[in-house]
Amino acid sequence: MVAVFGLNIMEKTKVAIIGLGTVGSGVARLLLDFGDRTARHAGRTLWLEKVVVRDLQRARDCDLPQGVLTDQLSDVIDDPEIKVVAQLIGGLEPARTIMLQLLESGKDVVTANKALVAVHGPEIFDRARELGRSVAFEASVAGGIPIIANIGQCLSANQIQTLHGILNGTSNFILSKMHEDGAAYEEVVAEAQRLGYAEADPAMDVDGTDAAQKLAILAHLGFGARVDWDDIPRTGIDTLDLADVRYAEKMGYKIKLLAVAQLVDDPAGNGGLELHVSPTLVKAGRPLAEVSGPYNAIRVEADAVGQLLFYGPGAGQMPTASAVVADMIDTAVGRTAITFQTLELWSNRQARVGASDYASARGRFYLRVTVDDHPGVLAQITKALGEQEISIASVLQHEPDNDGQPIQLVIMTHETTAGAMSTACDKMSKLSCVKTEPVRMWVRD
Amino acid sequence: MVAVFGLNIMEKTKVAIIGLGTVGSGVARLLLDFGDRTARHAGRTLWLEKVVVRDLQRARDCDLPQGVLTDQLSDVIDDPEIKVVAQLIGGLEPARTIMLQLLESGKDVVTANKALVAVHGPEIFDRARELGRSVAFEASVAGGIPIIANIGQCLSANQIQTLHGILNGTSNFILSKMHEDGAAYEEVVAEAQRLGYAEADPAMDVDGTDAAQKLAILAHLGFGARVDWDDIPRTGIDTLDLADVRYAEKMGYKIKLLAVAQLVDDPAGNGGLELHVSPTLVKAGRPLAEVSGPYNAIRVEADAVGQLLFYGPGAGQMPTASAVVADMIDTAVGRTAITFQTLELWSNRQARVGASDYASARGRFYLRVTVDDHPGVLAQITKALGEQEISIASVLQHEPDNDGQPIQLVIMTHETTAGAMSTACDKMSKLSCVKTEPVRMWVRD
Repeated sequence: MVAVFGLNIMEKTKVAIIGLGTVGSGVARLLLDFGDRTARHAGRTLWLEKVVVRDLQRARDCDLPQGVLTDQLSDVIDDPEIKVVAQLIGGLEPARTIMLQLLESGKDVVTANKALVAVHGPEIFDRARELGRSVAFEASVAGGIPIIANIGQCLSANQIQTLHGILNGTSNFILSKMHEDGAAYEEVVAEAQRLGYAEADPAMDVDGTDAAQKLAILAHLGFGARVDWDDIPRTGIDTLDLADVRYAEKMGYKIKLLAVAQLVDDPAGNGGLELHVSPTLVKAGRPLAEVSGPYNAIRVEADAVGQLLFYGPGAGQMPTASAVVADMIDTAVGRTAITFQTLELWSNRQARVGASDYASARGRFYLRVTVDDHPGVLAQITKALGEQEISIASVLQHEPDNDGQPIQLVIMTHETTAGAMSTACDKMSKLSCVKTEPVRMWVRD
Repeated sequence: MVAVFGLNIMEKTKVAIIGLGTVGSGVARLLLDFGDRTARHAGRTLWLEKVVVRDLQRARDCDLPQGVLTDQLSDVIDDPEIKVVAQLIGGLEPARTIMLQLLESGKDVVTANKALVAVHGPEIFDRARELGRSVAFEASVAGGIPIIANIGQCLSANQIQTLHGILNGTSNFILSKMHEDGAAYEEVVAEAQRLGYAEADPAMDVDGTDAAQKLAILAHLGFGARVDWDDIPRTGIDTLDLADVRYAEKMGYKIKLLAVAQLVDDPAGNGGLELHVSPTLVKAGRPLAEVSGPYNAIRVEADAVGQLLFYGPGAGQMPTASAVVADMIDTAVGRTAITFQTLELWSNRQARVGASDYASARGRFYLRVTVDDHPGVLAQITKALGEQEISIASVLQHEPDNDGQPIQLVIMTHETTAGAMSTACDKMSKLSCVKTEPVRMWVRD
């Protein structure tokens, strides 16, 4: 037993990792290569006892000490000395079953699996509470940005009012490139895949699923809401036309895939938590508009502190591993247990706020309508808007490149509701002068 | 005893506030008006038992329940049921004495007093450790931005490499206004005072003292350094000429008062922690450059997570109160005690890194020299730079407004050292063609 820095750093907590993929290897590296540092920051050694993988034969990019690698989950489950486990398997199963097995066997668990938390949160968190265990999940949202700790702990003197997040790095990389290079969606996706910023099948990233799952987690944490992520209205960037990127720029905006959670106080009873994920025009120069590349950012407005912004890498091996190991340290020293007891995560306690009716969500809109180049067309479009009491802030109409070709009408509205906008667009699309489905996006200053 | 949300929220921790100035009133308001919310986030009620003030007769902008206000510190010291005290008196004395009295009497203490922590940190933190007590100080740096928790806890899997901070809101407000309005320093200071962003005597804010004290705290926390704030080389904005703001803009930069802590790895033995506070040219468009008004921001680069940015209000009643109450909650639930035990704050343990020699700090520089409009002058200036092996990236020289008037030479250098630059400037100022002391500032991309 050696006392260093006044702390007995030979005191150790045995830990394990389940899954040695990209993040798992990063976590192993931090624990093994930087053990002294971790010990200094934790006041104890985090001793990597076991790493469980499915296939022992597969090549790994990380060197583990003799006897650490195993394909037997029971090596962890049955070892009562292993206290903290980083469960780093993706997908829902067997991740869920393993998670529950770990909790049942008395482990505190750390995870980076956002889908697991978003989908099976209620079951997992309830079971952990019943068993007196904890689940930490910093890495499940916004990668290396410690947004879970900031919302769950640092802002505890506040009522959060809005969260605006760029939560999907792949989408943000693609959108930034479309703006910078003026390149079309398909072209940029191919480049993102080459550079490793997009999966071979990027569907979950670009269709808003990933951001909606993360938003559901933040909504639970920040607002005490009980939301099924699949109920969150969402539009991805996979149908985004380069034309809209160009028009947005012309008007001084950038398009971002924003995840929004916003408390709506409405005396008429339509209040609650407004939630959606959608491509949004954000005024250029505003911090969120200037987040480019595969980064994430979250802007928080809260009643005491005002506005905060957190910016950083939303994914990647070491940023995510940084969040996982911070959680492992917090769990080993006992901070997580305290936090977990006080947070109302997916509990059976009554939700403090329900989702508001999306149709009543208020804001300004960008609208692009492809119309025949005939006299009276603008009147028809403005009539459809006027009937829904949507007033127009500005109109952009170019002459067609060739006579007889359809033209683009770009309209910025004053504040209205998502419902009014939806009704107006439905009506427009039935007009004979309107050639394609109108494109609409939220606008944020 | 009533159980709500599965937690027994009638369990209560009695707390007290010393000092009912701006921040103290804000803290009292959060505890009194939002007690239920605080209880929900803490899992227990924070019960405001006493508020100690010097003068009971002075008018207050906050309503306290009967019996809470007192001018007797002993009402707190002698009440063993009061566990957590927010010590919100400014200045060094009697703040230091009261701090020690509170610790001796068994209280855990929360403070927003940056000068106290920076100057008397060693004594206070050592005594707290000896007594088994804790001191929390989130509000002492960057107001509402939870930078202390983020560095001390959330980034514990990392070695931080650089911290670049805009830590003084008054200076940032003034600099932003000089850029936006093209107004001179004195004019903008007067406006800042009218708007309440600058004190009647803003010396500590604008001369770099405030930022250096905050930087010393961050250097302790993030790097395990033991620095006396007064040893940190610092230049304020109080001598900044509007001309430099204009030249910076012309070259695509904004001037920010940056507090820099940067690990320097130097095989020659000049390594260590580079620390300074100085007006710095930051490339426009970079997140730090775009922080305007009375805001603060801290950019952190760390080996695992990469780059993070935290942005928010650096001062103000409710942002600061938000940080104080978060600390009070953390202390009441026991998280602070855990964190305090593992952080190496101002302890007698050996410093992990010493301050590097400022003269060897490397970077690019902006240089403005006022010279006679004679042939051969540029050659003399470039010779002075060349002798120190400073190479020039660009030169800006305007024709004088009137014949015979001195002209401004604006030079951007390639990377060099602070020492070389200092020597070159000393030599230049002795040249007969140089009319005033050369102006130099760091440049950051």
